Amino acid sequence: MKIPRWKKAEFEEIEYEPTSIRELLKEMKNICELIVDLAYSAILFNNKEIAEEVRYLEVRMDKLNYQIRIMAMLAARNIEDAEKMAGVLQIAQAAEKISNAAGDIVKLLSYKLTHPILPRLIKESDEIIRKLSISKSSAAVGKKIGELKISSETGVRILAIRRKNKWIYGPKGDIELQEGDVLICIGPEEGMEELNKLLKGEIEVLE
Amino acid sequence: MKIPRWKKAEFEEIEYEPTSIRELLKEMKNICELIVDLAYSAILFNNKEIAEEVRYLEVRMDKLNYQIRIMAMLAARNIEDAEKMAGVLQIAQAAEKISNAAGDIVKLLSYKLTHPILPRLIKESDEIIRKLSISKSSAAVGKKIGELKISSETGVRILAIRRKNKWIYGPKGDIELQEGDVLICIGPEEGMEELNKLLKGEIEVLE
Repeated sequence: MKIPRWKKAEFEEIEYEPTSIRELLKEMKNICELIVDLAYSAILFNNKEIAEEVRYLEVRMDKLNYQIRIMAMLAARNIEDAEKMAGVLQIAQAAEKISNAAGDIVKLLSYKLTHPILPRLIKESDEIIRKLSISKSSAAVGKKIGELKISSETGVRILAIRRKNKWIYGPKGDIELQEGDVLICIGPEEGMEELNKLLKGEIEVLE
Repeated sequence: MKIPRWKKAEFEEIEYEPTSIRELLKEMKNICELIVDLAYSAILFNNKEIAEEVRYLEVRMDKLNYQIRIMAMLAARNIEDAEKMAGVLQIAQAAEKISNAAGDIVKLLSYKLTHPILPRLIKESDEIIRKLSISKSSAAVGKKIGELKISSETGVRILAIRRKNKWIYGPKGDIELQEGDVLICIGPEEGMEELNKLLKGEIEVLE
């Protein structure tokens, strides 16, 4: 049996990654904003791939929460620090609640009902969310997002990039794409097809 | 003592607003996406006005959840319906958890600490969130969002509009602005000032 990626992540040893509280909070905020969008998209489009990303981010959030607790305790030296850190922990706990709730939403997809529960029930716009990966042969490898004119040519926005075990949230135009990057994208279906062709090496430029 | 708006909302009688489960879920999804952004913005910019909107949306979410439970029970006629509705209720409950967590985040602002807790702690971009209202004398009254070229001239995006007790989430270009509308906006500080001048009637067009 193949162990899903999020499950593996859950059992990985928690490494103490030295970082700042500021960095931890920033990542938690980014996860919160992304995970809510992804959870709803997974359920609306009955998309298990996106649901898997949600589970993965949920596990990542748990780890960040563990780290931030340790950092906060180490950082508090006096009552004023401690008050600040209590605030930090309250925000961190709320962030974890949000990611757990997103996890609750996608759990629905694992109930083996004969019919999908809510596909496109509340779909209104023409936007879809897709997970696209970059092939070795793609002309996009080594190019910056801005250079490729993804947004203006296809109407697709990249919400996040997963690069191996790291996430880049809300990537800006100066991020260089690499082989194997997984892009979480939102946009019109047609533009998404076009972008996918570029990423798979089927076309050389977006037009 | 002035009773804050969200508190009044809490004690208003719950009226049964006839609507569809689809509409209820759509609004809950919109609130989830908006409330997370707003909660973080409130805390990062130490902004009590935005925090008040969060509390208001949290109360609104409670009401929607109450309504959706009633609707779901009335809708379930057989086992297949009931399974679907159980899924709907699970999503609704997760949505409420998300809005409660957002409420937990902004509660920090009501602790009367001598120093703000996290102002701009994780601020990285130049974007700010502001609540702007439209004066009677503004040239924007009666104009469509698209006509005003708000996004292209100022870089500001309207996340939501509160019009009396109703919300318009992610308004499109064809929405006509009205006197008294409250716009929740995100964008660069400079563009925000420019837009505010238009909305207050200090300038006639954005340039």
